[in-house]
Amino acid sequence: MMARKPALAVVGATGAVGAVMLGILSQHADVWGEIRLLASPRSAGRTLTVRGEPTEVRAVTEESLAGADVALFLAPGEVAARWAPVAAGRGTVVVDASPAFRDDPDVPLVVPEINGHAARVRPLGIVASPGCTTLALIVAVGALHAEFGLTELVVSAYQAAGGAGRAGVAALREQLAAVAGTELGTAPGDVRRALGDAAAGPFAAPLALNVVPWSGTLQADGWSSEELRIRAETRRILGLPGLPVAATCVRVPVIGAHSVSVHARFERPVEVARAHEILATSPGVVLYDDPAAAGFPTPADVVGTDPTWVGRVRRAPDDERALELFVCGDNLRKGGALNAAQIAEAVAAELPLD
Amino acid sequence: MMARKPALAVVGATGAVGAVMLGILSQHADVWGEIRLLASPRSAGRTLTVRGEPTEVRAVTEESLAGADVALFLAPGEVAARWAPVAAGRGTVVVDASPAFRDDPDVPLVVPEINGHAARVRPLGIVASPGCTTLALIVAVGALHAEFGLTELVVSAYQAAGGAGRAGVAALREQLAAVAGTELGTAPGDVRRALGDAAAGPFAAPLALNVVPWSGTLQADGWSSEELRIRAETRRILGLPGLPVAATCVRVPVIGAHSVSVHARFERPVEVARAHEILATSPGVVLYDDPAAAGFPTPADVVGTDPTWVGRVRRAPDDERALELFVCGDNLRKGGALNAAQIAEAVAAELPLD
Ligand SMILES: NC(=O)c1ccc[n+]([C@@H]2O[C@H](COP(=O)([O-])OP(=O)(O)OC[C@H]3O[C@@H](n4cnc5c(N)ncnc54)[C@H](OP(=O)(O)O)[C@@H]3O)[C@@H](O)[C@H]2O)c1
Ligand SMILES: NC(=O)c1ccc[n+]([C@@H]2O[C@H](COP(=O)([O-])OP(=O)(O)OC[C@H]3O[C@@H](n4cnc5c(N)ncnc54)[C@H](OP(=O)(O)O)[C@@H]3O)[C@@H](O)[C@H]2O)c1
Repeated sequence: MMARKPALAVVGATGAVGAVMLGILSQHADVWGEIRLLASPRSAGRTLTVRGEPTEVRAVTEESLAGADVALFLAPGEVAARWAPVAAGRGTVVVDASPAFRDDPDVPLVVPEINGHAARVRPLGIVASPGCTTLALIVAVGALHAEFGLTELVVSAYQAAGGAGRAGVAALREQLAAVAGTELGTAPGDVRRALGDAAAGPFAAPLALNVVPWSGTLQADGWSSEELRIRAETRRILGLPGLPVAATCVRVPVIGAHSVSVHARFERPVEVARAHEILATSPGVVLYDDPAAAGFPTPADVVGTDPTWVGRVRRAPDDERALELFVCGDNLRKGGALNAAQIAEAVAAELPLD
Repeated sequence: MMARKPALAVVGATGAVGAVMLGILSQHADVWGEIRLLASPRSAGRTLTVRGEPTEVRAVTEESLAGADVALFLAPGEVAARWAPVAAGRGTVVVDASPAFRDDPDVPLVVPEINGHAARVRPLGIVASPGCTTLALIVAVGALHAEFGLTELVVSAYQAAGGAGRAGVAALREQLAAVAGTELGTAPGDVRRALGDAAAGPFAAPLALNVVPWSGTLQADGWSSEELRIRAETRRILGLPGLPVAATCVRVPVIGAHSVSVHARFERPVEVARAHEILATSPGVVLYDDPAAAGFPTPADVVGTDPTWVGRVRRAPDDERALELFVCGDNLRKGGALNAAQIAEAVAAELPLD
């Protein structure tokens, strides 16, 4: 018996994650039946192309959501908080890429390579996809955890502007154009003066010719929301509620692809050779670790690709149970659209369609 | 009795560190008697200004070094390895900013705020100044160590192009000009293709719109020389030969000023309030930690300034003995010329001048 194909709504189709999602949906063209593209009222009436078909964008409303089997939410957290329960209440399975439900114990937080089974138990009808920085590291770290037993993580992120959406990329490009060809960068504050306030975009300080040790909003004890999220999300996905995680998030003037310097401590002594074997054979991971030939991932090289790239694998020089890694992943692909698409496809494959 | 003022030779006066040194020597104008500016034969005959006086650059030779009471070496390691023993053999005290002697047990490795006394015992007549990344963090970490007792460091560096000298800055500026105004940065390798091989400069991969997890040369077990240096230098300066240190060095597209994300573990439980007090009152450190008002150091803001700037002070969420910090320091000032000048001035003040 050939069931009908599930209908999909894409909320946030006009955004940065949305644009990548349209590409993925076009490549995986036979998964879905109807595909509806939704966004804010600002975008209603625009035409986007998916699976080669020009498709009109509609505003999110009860009507435009009605009848979708699955809804991908690729929109700000407030939008998901408002509309995901509406869709789920009418039987649509929601896969949400925003932070809105990632802490909710009744919403599974899923990375298919690690805990795909968790998407089957969704009391609210909502499945959450983790944040882009967690997704940059979790597939690699999860593979090592399965072998060695993770006991501690210390991570420092090198976050691309694209993690802040279209506005982040636009601000960085504007800033780079303003400083290119100048001799700026050697006197205190001259980058800041040259850029003025106008071009700050979503960043807490100028990003061109700079790095900014802040992303997200201020939480207790000086932590940023993005840093605490990496901790909370990693614990949930790996099922290690007490895992010590200390994260530092820093924006760097890169368009797409986050990088993370990872110090991971394990229950058992680790060997680099065994870590290499694990990483080389884990789904979703590419090992690229040949420093003698300048072989290590960089964001400019991995942007636009699907996997988590891992290089610079070293055993901590003074601790036989700890590994250092440098991981890179495209924040819009595995870090955003791809992980959500993987969840949605797995969910759709098991839906009882009439 | 008024002694004569000591004569100074500056080897590498034409370089990136040299240029900053000339400024410092002009500000501290009454320390030195004669100042000789030396460099490679390529620069012989050029005129540079120090203390307002046009001064001809000479090639380094036995003659041009002869009679200097102190010689500052601000040149590549090979130059120091060749000429520092020559100068020291004739009674000149050498202060070397290169890596050449930093591992030599007969050469003290000195940061005046921490172990200034060590410069008094110099069996070879040579004192070494640490590398710019160590210097970015060591004054802050040393102050906390004095109070809490350091037991472990995990650091991830965000290294400016300027740490690779004039050639590094020139390569980054050329690369930034090439990508500015383009839409590059979202497809794999398009930055690399746009830049070609020509503009790589001293970096192992393109640096514009990118971060590069490599600096220095390949050592055993996948470590880079810069990473192992941070470990070796930190241990020597703090007098903690067994200190566990895991460092990851990553170049970022910043002109000047290195940043470091520091995870520091201590013997005793730490309080952020007490860490703030220590940092706010330590010589050479500026505490700038007010995230509610976007108060944290960034390289573009601290470049051109002398101190080590510290922000983002947090206690590790799961470890009462660990602190996270984000530190920034100008690699050419405290990270290069300033630390060497401080050592040289302290040495000169105690020289028995006829
Ligand atoms: N960027 C990443 O790397 C990344 C990775 C993982 C997860 N995420 C998460 O994914 C979500 C989207 O991120 P993004 O980077 O794609 O952001 P973005 O580029 O700013 O796009 C936002 C999208 O949400 C839509 N939207 C905004 N307000 C809306 C409203 N009131 N009603 C309906 N739709 C609305 C926008 O539509 P209009 O065009 O009509 O404004 C647009 O399609 C966010 O929750 C983000 O945290 C982002
Ligand atoms: N850049 C930093 O942030 C930093 C910080 C701390 C320490 N250091 C160390 O300081 C030293 C200088 O670094 P830099 O960044 O200033 O490098 P740089 O900009 O490349 O300058 C190198 C200097 O060394 C001179 N030199 C080169 N070959 C020579 C030779 N054969 N004989 C005599 N002089 C020669 C050069 O003279 P010409 O102009 O004649 O070639 C120039 O003055 C290096 O050892 C570096 O590791 C650098």
